[in-house]
Amino acid sequence: MSAAPTSESPPLDAARSALIEAALRQASQFDANCPSQLAEAIRYSLLAPGKRLRPHLVLLAAEACGGPQAVEPAIPAAVAVEMIHAYSLVHDDLPAMDDDDLRRGRPTCHKQFDEATAILVGDALLTRAFEVLATGIQPGERAARCCTLLAQAAGAEALVGGQADDLAAEFRHIGLERLQSIHRRKTGALFRASLALGALAADGSGEQGQALVLFGEKLGHAFQIVDDLLDVSGAEANVGKRLGKDRRRGKVTYPSLLGVETSRRTASELIDQACQAIESFGAAAQPLRELAEFVGRRSR
Amino acid sequence: MSAAPTSESPPLDAARSALIEAALRQASQFDANCPSQLAEAIRYSLLAPGKRLRPHLVLLAAEACGGPQAVEPAIPAAVAVEMIHAYSLVHDDLPAMDDDDLRRGRPTCHKQFDEATAILVGDALLTRAFEVLATGIQPGERAARCCTLLAQAAGAEALVGGQADDLAAEFRHIGLERLQSIHRRKTGALFRASLALGALAADGSGEQGQALVLFGEKLGHAFQIVDDLLDVSGAEANVGKRLGKDRRRGKVTYPSLLGVETSRRTASELIDQACQAIESFGAAAQPLRELAEFVGRRSR
Repeated sequence: MSAAPTSESPPLDAARSALIEAALRQASQFDANCPSQLAEAIRYSLLAPGKRLRPHLVLLAAEACGGPQAVEPAIPAAVAVEMIHAYSLVHDDLPAMDDDDLRRGRPTCHKQFDEATAILVGDALLTRAFEVLATGIQPGERAARCCTLLAQAAGAEALVGGQADDLAAEFRHIGLERLQSIHRRKTGALFRASLALGALAADGSGEQGQALVLFGEKLGHAFQIVDDLLDVSGAEANVGKRLGKDRRRGKVTYPSLLGVETSRRTASELIDQACQAIESFGAAAQPLRELAEFVGRRSR
Repeated sequence: MSAAPTSESPPLDAARSALIEAALRQASQFDANCPSQLAEAIRYSLLAPGKRLRPHLVLLAAEACGGPQAVEPAIPAAVAVEMIHAYSLVHDDLPAMDDDDLRRGRPTCHKQFDEATAILVGDALLTRAFEVLATGIQPGERAARCCTLLAQAAGAEALVGGQADDLAAEFRHIGLERLQSIHRRKTGALFRASLALGALAADGSGEQGQALVLFGEKLGHAFQIVDDLLDVSGAEANVGKRLGKDRRRGKVTYPSLLGVETSRRTASELIDQACQAIESFGAAAQPLRELAEFVGRRSR
């Protein structure tokens, strides 16, 4: 049962969303060896209201490859990518990094708790992501491949490296190629991994996996352009984080390099290319196409 | 060829040490997607001179279970535990945590580079540890079990939770039970995991694994008591980190609770218990016993 897609509400299956929330809640339960304040801060950061785009992408990729019965076995991968996403936000928001005080409409983790807690929350979520994959994906050999895939997307050559370069680029002029290289690692890698993990969890063919990864690459790129556009022209109450911060931190963005109109057109073209990449899936990939269309026109 | 054990030099096989260093160097190579300064900071933190106790424990456990030919297949696990150890030191040293400026005789990562880099170095090492395990341990099903084991030892219910409680205990009186609970998670868990990973990588029996984990538990406990003793009475030039800092940070320690003499005796008893735990291995565990004796009398 899909909600009617509007520019405000993503075309996400409500039952699927509930499944993801329940899995995230369950995976963020800890025994008494985890201090209660740390557990609370982990859940504060992981369970904050979010679109859960990446977990949805995992489950939709699994379904596109293996049909409805492929969804449940892929849930650990959906949880793991959201944990990586949440950890990266908590660490990126730290004073030594992007120094943000608002995230998903609430105080950032280090504002709500303290810096030490926020560092440990990120470490705990990053670690738990691999535990969830390693224990939850079956068989074990597939779980190991999922761990490899996620580690490569989250590591120094992708997410972490992209964040380092993003910080280094503050108050410097960089060109389009460098901007794209940063976003490909900082945002794109986890989008691509989400699709690849879904395909892998569903034991999809190599061809299916490649098509979905190309979809993820184009979608991630479009997502980042729209994110840059929202930072310029969005409404803070909708977006749930401080806006105009790219300019304040001297960050080159797509609109600052290409202008607003060209950025919009580029995002739109990327969405088209994403949808073309998964044409061969036919109706099985229709939810992925609707999600892509939403990403292209989202306002938060 | 073992060096003659003295109180200064650990009884570690020199060829084995060289093998570990080479594996650490190889595992900390990154392609051009990792910014060069980040790669340098990762290697600065991982390759800093260290005893590599944990990697040696992994390899000795593997050898005790499977003989000399079991060593090589366990190397990825040895690398992974050292990466987790190095990451935890980098994050623990941050200003928001223990705020240390000296580590392994050199400026801490955030002093040598900057705080943002140190946060990212820790994140990258933590992530790489799982990549190394997932790709390096064979077969894949065993790699997944190794990832589970390491994630549990490094996560919110162990290492990360122990660090959170350790910070919370500053300038508060805690009793022996609470102190032990902190150390069991902050130090002991990774010692236990090192032994367990070695046994698992070598496909040891359940009984072998249990004996080795008990050895690791006693050894880790003794290690922490000796660490506390060194903080009171060691020589900074030997130990390679600031001393007297437990008192300055208002931390309860074994000597502050039990006195120096009782702490020494307790550590010695724990070493005896560790050695008893692996009696059934006979000569195959002799290097582990020598390592345990060294931990009991080390001065750095």
